[in-house]
Amino acid sequence: MHVSQILKSKAEQAVVTIAPGSTVAAAAELLSSRRIGAVIVSPDGRRVAGILSERDIVRELGRRGPACMSDPVETIMTARIISCRKDEVANDVLQKMTDGRFRHMPVMEGDEMVGLISIGDVVKARLAELAMERDALEGMVKGY
Amino acid sequence: MHVSQILKSKAEQAVVTIAPGSTVAAAAELLSSRRIGAVIVSPDGRRVAGILSERDIVRELGRRGPACMSDPVETIMTARIISCRKDEVANDVLQKMTDGRFRHMPVMEGDEMVGLISIGDVVKARLAELAMERDALEGMVKGY
Repeated sequence: MHVSQILKSKAEQAVVTIAPGSTVAAAAELLSSRRIGAVIVSPDGRRVAGILSERDIVRELGRRGPACMSDPVETIMTARIISCRKDEVANDVLQKMTDGRFRHMPVMEGDEMVGLISIGDVVKARLAELAMERDALEGMVKGY
Repeated sequence: MHVSQILKSKAEQAVVTIAPGSTVAAAAELLSSRRIGAVIVSPDGRRVAGILSERDIVRELGRRGPACMSDPVETIMTARIISCRKDEVANDVLQKMTDGRFRHMPVMEGDEMVGLISIGDVVKARLAELAMERDALEGMVKGY
């Protein structure tokens, strides 16, 4: 299964973004109100400056306490982002996520972000794919 | 694959717990220093009063701001916990986690917690299991 198909299967296609200068408090409000686990940090909604997850916020809270809540998101976001393209397959993307221990990945076309997939989306696709392959093979075995 | 096998495959067997009266700030420090996504709230390290995740903390921060950091964890933890037993299979546990949209599940023997598994542990087990089934069937098909 390709990333393009995973994107199509998502109920929500739009990617939630936040400006690099917004506060961590504003990001927490956004994650909470939109019920999402991470937000893309972007100056214009298309280019990707970084990503800020629930984990990034709690790690910083744990290290520095509530003072971090008034910092701009760009100071605590993850700036080195691993992204994927629409033509990559679920298994390769899942491997990247597992190796890098992250849960969200922007889908890029050149410099422009065209979607965001979570590890949940990819796992769902991969499990469906493997079950389908197994069922097809089982049908062949029983057919003999 | 059974939950007992998933537990055995984990590098870290001990479950990190926090007392119900500890502050949310202390929980954030614990999650951060132990590099974990959730902590079991327990009065004695064996019985389970609830679970507190990174998500619970960020949701509360988003709603109420940094004031929540001095609250006791028992006021914002998830108290209604779905657990599993050692003899359940990976696929059933994964279904419970996906349906309930949570990522961590205590493994219980009666009233006592004997381990904690994450959705990552279960997905890894399930993917290995499905790939193995497919490979075995493929071998049968090619063998004919």
